Amino acid sequence: MPIEHAAAVKLSEQYQQVRSLSEKLASKLQNEDTIIQAMPDVSPPKWHLAHTTWFFERFILKENDSSYVPFNPQFDYLFNSYYETIGSYHPRHSRGVLSRPSMDEIYEFRNHVDEAIIQLVNQFESQLPQEIHDLIEIGLQHEQQHQELLLTDVKYNFSCTPLLPQFAEPKTFQLPQSNTETTYINIEGGLVEIGYSGAGFSFDNERPRHKVWLEPYRLASHPVTNGEYISFIEAGGYEQPEHWLSDGWATVKKEKWKHPLYWRKTEDGWYTFTLTGEKKLSLDEPVCHISFYEADAFARWSGKRLPTEAEWEHAMASIPIDGNFAESECYHPVVDHSENLAPFKQVYGDVWEWTSSPYTSYPRSKPLEGALGEYNAKFMCNQIVLRGGSCASSQSHIRPTYRNFFPADKRWQFSGLRLAEDQS
Amino acid sequence: MPIEHAAAVKLSEQYQQVRSLSEKLASKLQNEDTIIQAMPDVSPPKWHLAHTTWFFERFILKENDSSYVPFNPQFDYLFNSYYETIGSYHPRHSRGVLSRPSMDEIYEFRNHVDEAIIQLVNQFESQLPQEIHDLIEIGLQHEQQHQELLLTDVKYNFSCTPLLPQFAEPKTFQLPQSNTETTYINIEGGLVEIGYSGAGFSFDNERPRHKVWLEPYRLASHPVTNGEYISFIEAGGYEQPEHWLSDGWATVKKEKWKHPLYWRKTEDGWYTFTLTGEKKLSLDEPVCHISFYEADAFARWSGKRLPTEAEWEHAMASIPIDGNFAESECYHPVVDHSENLAPFKQVYGDVWEWTSSPYTSYPRSKPLEGALGEYNAKFMCNQIVLRGGSCASSQSHIRPTYRNFFPADKRWQFSGLRLAEDQS
Amino acid sequence: MPIEHAAAVKLSEQYQQVRSLSEKLASKLQNEDTIIQAMPDVSPPKWHLAHTTWFFERFILKENDSSYVPFNPQFDYLFNSYYETIGSYHPRHSRGVLSRPSMDEIYEFRNHVDEAIIQLVNQFESQLPQEIHDLIEIGLQHEQQHQELLLTDVKYNFSCTPLLPQFAEPKTFQLPQSNTETTYINIEGGLVEIGYSGAGFSFDNERPRHKVWLEPYRLASHPVTNGEYISFIEAGGYEQPEHWLSDGWATVKKEKWKHPLYWRKTEDGWYTFTLTGEKKLSLDEPVCHISFYEADAFARWSGKRLPTEAEWEHAMASIPIDGNFAESECYHPVVDHSENLAPFKQVYGDVWEWTSSPYTSYPRSKPLEGALGEYNAKFMCNQIVLRGGSCASSQSHIRPTYRNFFPADKRWQFSGLRLAEDQS
Amino acid sequence: MPIEHAAAVKLSEQYQQVRSLSEKLASKLQNEDTIIQAMPDVSPPKWHLAHTTWFFERFILKENDSSYVPFNPQFDYLFNSYYETIGSYHPRHSRGVLSRPSMDEIYEFRNHVDEAIIQLVNQFESQLPQEIHDLIEIGLQHEQQHQELLLTDVKYNFSCTPLLPQFAEPKTFQLPQSNTETTYINIEGGLVEIGYSGAGFSFDNERPRHKVWLEPYRLASHPVTNGEYISFIEAGGYEQPEHWLSDGWATVKKEKWKHPLYWRKTEDGWYTFTLTGEKKLSLDEPVCHISFYEADAFARWSGKRLPTEAEWEHAMASIPIDGNFAESECYHPVVDHSENLAPFKQVYGDVWEWTSSPYTSYPRSKPLEGALGEYNAKFMCNQIVLRGGSCASSQSHIRPTYRNFFPADKRWQFSGLRLAEDQS
Repeated sequence: MPIEHAAAVKLSEQYQQVRSLSEKLASKLQNEDTIIQAMPDVSPPKWHLAHTTWFFERFILKENDSSYVPFNPQFDYLFNSYYETIGSYHPRHSRGVLSRPSMDEIYEFRNHVDEAIIQLVNQFESQLPQEIHDLIEIGLQHEQQHQELLLTDVKYNFSCTPLLPQFAEPKTFQLPQSNTETTYINIEGGLVEIGYSGAGFSFDNERPRHKVWLEPYRLASHPVTNGEYISFIEAGGYEQPEHWLSDGWATVKKEKWKHPLYWRKTEDGWYTFTLTGEKKLSLDEPVCHISFYEADAFARWSGKRLPTEAEWEHAMASIPIDGNFAESECYHPVVDHSENLAPFKQVYGDVWEWTSSPYTSYPRSKPLEGALGEYNAKFMCNQIVLRGGSCASSQSHIRPTYRNFFPADKRWQFSGLRLAEDQS
Repeated sequence: MPIEHAAAVKLSEQYQQVRSLSEKLASKLQNEDTIIQAMPDVSPPKWHLAHTTWFFERFILKENDSSYVPFNPQFDYLFNSYYETIGSYHPRHSRGVLSRPSMDEIYEFRNHVDEAIIQLVNQFESQLPQEIHDLIEIGLQHEQQHQELLLTDVKYNFSCTPLLPQFAEPKTFQLPQSNTETTYINIEGGLVEIGYSGAGFSFDNERPRHKVWLEPYRLASHPVTNGEYISFIEAGGYEQPEHWLSDGWATVKKEKWKHPLYWRKTEDGWYTFTLTGEKKLSLDEPVCHISFYEADAFARWSGKRLPTEAEWEHAMASIPIDGNFAESECYHPVVDHSENLAPFKQVYGDVWEWTSSPYTSYPRSKPLEGALGEYNAKFMCNQIVLRGGSCASSQSHIRPTYRNFFPADKRWQFSGLRLAEDQS
Repeated sequence: MPIEHAAAVKLSEQYQQVRSLSEKLASKLQNEDTIIQAMPDVSPPKWHLAHTTWFFERFILKENDSSYVPFNPQFDYLFNSYYETIGSYHPRHSRGVLSRPSMDEIYEFRNHVDEAIIQLVNQFESQLPQEIHDLIEIGLQHEQQHQELLLTDVKYNFSCTPLLPQFAEPKTFQLPQSNTETTYINIEGGLVEIGYSGAGFSFDNERPRHKVWLEPYRLASHPVTNGEYISFIEAGGYEQPEHWLSDGWATVKKEKWKHPLYWRKTEDGWYTFTLTGEKKLSLDEPVCHISFYEADAFARWSGKRLPTEAEWEHAMASIPIDGNFAESECYHPVVDHSENLAPFKQVYGDVWEWTSSPYTSYPRSKPLEGALGEYNAKFMCNQIVLRGGSCASSQSHIRPTYRNFFPADKRWQFSGLRLAEDQS
Repeated sequence: MPIEHAAAVKLSEQYQQVRSLSEKLASKLQNEDTIIQAMPDVSPPKWHLAHTTWFFERFILKENDSSYVPFNPQFDYLFNSYYETIGSYHPRHSRGVLSRPSMDEIYEFRNHVDEAIIQLVNQFESQLPQEIHDLIEIGLQHEQQHQELLLTDVKYNFSCTPLLPQFAEPKTFQLPQSNTETTYINIEGGLVEIGYSGAGFSFDNERPRHKVWLEPYRLASHPVTNGEYISFIEAGGYEQPEHWLSDGWATVKKEKWKHPLYWRKTEDGWYTFTLTGEKKLSLDEPVCHISFYEADAFARWSGKRLPTEAEWEHAMASIPIDGNFAESECYHPVVDHSENLAPFKQVYGDVWEWTSSPYTSYPRSKPLEGALGEYNAKFMCNQIVLRGGSCASSQSHIRPTYRNFFPADKRWQFSGLRLAEDQS
């Protein structure tokens, strides 16, 4: 059954909004910046721009538009990220050697695909098949994910240049800081349900909604702040193996970690590099750019623990989704200035919150059919779930059921934590 | 409250039984064999003999016997495995360079500690404190774990010598093969309980008993056999990325895996190296020496899945613990020859069964106090749970609630799988 | 004693010629191309442009012009290559992450330094001190070396992009191919002299002129051609360890070498990537982009050997320095089309010729004083001497006594070989 | 022409002497010691015992005795070191995993081969072919080389065990220390000859004798001592890049070198590990266990240089070959106690002396025919020549023309240096 005309119109609008944000972000860069890959985990901004476009070409236009002429047949090799079932691809760690295609060509590629997508939607008028609608929607969600990665990757790349460039001008919220202290809120638990069950978009990894048993627990009202994290550092947290998982301690020693990523200690106190340049560390902002290992060690040192993802979702399901997202253009977590009455603060936006839950499939979960089945399911090993979105996420991209995931040692995302504990 | 005299006597008997098994196993080796470490994951047999002894010296004698004279103060450095909170230790990957202390010295060390432990128990007569009893018990469980590792490590070491030595003479069960085919048994699920709650010994990672919700599921009556696994190989399983987790596929390509560890294809069919020498592969034996990645890929290719550890434990809780353990001295899984009426076969012994569950702490779990808190808890990251024990485990060591765990790419343990699926 | 006015004028002219060539080469690149470092041995073109400029700033302006204001104090860290005695520097293998300073800033830097140098020379009028003259001269020689590296590095970078971009339009010599076959010319040897002794510029590693005893030998009239090298490949040269040095054979196996760098075999024969795009391999061109190991193995397989650097220099001392240099803008070796009567062909230009001589200091050699002593002397270990210049060298840069040097496994320079043998 | 009977008798005697020394050295080890390979450069003692035996089996018995029955056909794979042209072999870095064949089997192998060799020699009576004589001679020289390696390898292996075992009881020379100070002796140079030309045994790499031009030079009477080397350390030599070759400085930083291998600084001064246990460092003994990089840096810091191998050989050709060799069973360099009147002291024995000469072939040199051509020639790249023998060499093994060679970063041989300088 085709979707209604209004929905198709809305989709076209979303398409243009999302696509143009990528270009707006890229416009803040010089051409030389677009090709940097300062470590294997990051991708050059140019690659993000091309890969997200290839996603629409490969999964929508090539499959559903017999008249479509691919922009350049070599792009299937260059801009496939990891879809093994559709062919070989350029090695991930070598994306930074692809000085060509040039930025000009990539913008041509984007225009070429954008025109074809809009034409495809328009040609159906009020008869847009559900399947195409859903593929475009997933393509947009996918592009939003890469917009966040573009921001985190540029931040990492820029941090490797001693000149410490600014991606954007500093910007701060106008509202006064909220006065609320961190408190712990009791939650009953019992046989609850988590996972997505509504009519809107969700990824396959959020479904189905399913029952989980939770013992009574308590969850902190606020994320952990820089000031609290400095107490851990000053108490010797990075020198004391007893707080750390075995793999975490090995990483601390190998990487010589002494503090979160991007921090620098000076005689004048702590500084941190941000997308708006290096700045003095604000003690009341949520701590950020820590690995799961550090989040877990901090929690142990605090006599608390990380929440499971079920505990997190059950508690946060009804908290309004507003906060410091990419739309605010701060590109950095801010101090709590919330005015709402919800018991939990800074739940959405600011920082992704590490949970204690390894990333696994939900009971009776079904991956998408075909190559898009590789989108999420094949990564369900050796990764940990994070919840809530960050200052680099688009607000429209985040849901209470949204599951982000990264390996336990990664720090270049805007990742922090919120503490939990058992009810006694 | 001290434990009763009978329990102390029983403990002394167990002590002598367990300790003498280590020496019996080592007696099958030549002195040169005892110092081999053919990869970082394995330890030299000599090191196992010394480390298990050090465990009693360090955690019991030094803590509870003020008159005890340590055998050699350097052994704290040499034979501490990973207890960060009690001091530095010799690097794990370099255990194979420690040609000294010699085997003769290590046997002297064992005698020295054995005499001190027996004397310690005897001196209390009928007043053995519960705490010392429990420490000795955990020391014996620990030694049983290292007995299994000694067997798997010797197997790996011997496989690296083109001469393919025998650890033991081949031995087979006398009973005829059972005729039962693999079937799938329905299990209701619902709000069930798993975890240990009895009075006997259990590790901290098995506690507390707690509620879990299970959807209705089905579990295979038998582990997957070599014959079934060969079908996967012959269907191109190792060449088709669609069955594999992303990390698994990367491992397959990097390690050039084409079949389970120890297999070798000849014109005359498949052969496998065993602790009793290389032998022709038996199609009806459970498949063994596969990683989690291979178990998971096989399950996907089969249209099934791995069970969670909760599904496994709930189904197997009442199955009798007998089977092909180290006591049988086969040191290799055998074909099913069970005569009992239990619906599930070869549950205990033969092969450890990979579950789909990452190794995490149970709700409200508490690690042991002090350095022994490092025994299990700090490994709860990047590991997968296996259940049921193997042909290299001691029968007295295994419980339905017992949780073994290894990283997803490890294959040198006797590890296989049993399939599960959702009830439709 | 200051140098004469005419010499100062000539130096200024050379300065402008050499400096502008760097910019002319860079102008053929897009901005994204200037920051690529596809392997640790290459540097981004942008880095070459900045480093050569920093060389003038650091060694001439800062030392000799008290009024000079450094362009950016951080450039000492960013653009010092390897001068340990003057301070720390950005790691070589990470030059490709420096997207900033931008190309615009680097051109500003170049202008800033150029103006200061010209002003410095001018202010002395006819009194330019010899020392400053010599430093500027070494700065220009240095920049010419980096111009060659810029070409070889761009070639390597471009070869990693499947789009195989062109650096320049193809261009060929107009002259007809020479008809001369390779012959071997007898050379007497005896107690000869090599090394530089004239009044012009030479590097410290070419001095002093000194005696060497040579047994009678024979040297090939031409470099080895692609056609001759293909015979080696087709005879199984890359599969037969008997031709190879031990380290060479290990490299062949590890790197899976089957042919020179940049070659590709198709159904239509061999192709090679060049700075003017991929083209069909010409059998009569000198073979190029081979390591010392390959040159040595080819020579052994041929029943010949490589010449020592003394044999090469003694034979070539009177051969005119003309040929296919960077000035011809071919950027690739060409077939012999020489018209002169010299017995040896394609001696200078086309390809650097591997000798059998490890790079060591000449007897009684003295490195330059101060930090510039690090220029050459500290690399006299684990490197092999090459002679004669290549199609990427400037003609004005090459002398008979010129010593180039690279590790035995490097292939990204325009490196080939000429055969030698003992007189019987 | 067959060799004379007396020569055959002498060869048999040498055979028994050399072979029995290997077993005498091995008898000082426990069985567990014989299989240790604490780094890839060393081989397990057991492997040395078997490989030297395999050398006789493979190159003499299999080629010249049609009735010979190989001891075990798998030994060709296990104990071939690096002869590519005769078949594949066990990887060098994994020799330490070969717990089997056991020591008992290896002694059986040695006996088996010894009997066959003696029988082969005897069967010819007075008609032993020159070729077989020469092969046995090279086999014995080869075994002497491995006897030295066995000593240096055991030393390295033992140094990795915190228990620091003794290989032998300490032993010291009875003679009083010589009173001579280090002086520099002038040597004329000119057109001299080096290389072997006599009738006795020499390796192919020592031949032919050939002319070399030497500028007038000066050579130190004594090797550099520990005391002199400590001055370099205390002056900051390991922290100052200006003394070091570029590759050397990179190694110092990567390996965190602060002093020679086996040294340890205590409050009580410097200690060093030796084959007779750890002992206080003697300031007057020659410095030992330094790399070429350290020798070269020390020489630069001293305002001197290393001699070339031609300078060394020309100066030392007539110095008597006596000194502190393996026969003295000190297994460590000693202070000079020479009584002879030769101008140069401790030339032979004590420590190998690094020269400045890369290891290359002599003019008109011819490697041995066949697989034994791989013995020396294929290593003529990336290695530096050492001269004079050490306290671990057999006296009967060393000649003035003898060329030892190791990569510039190796330190586990008994390697030191003697200074040289140009005559002014």
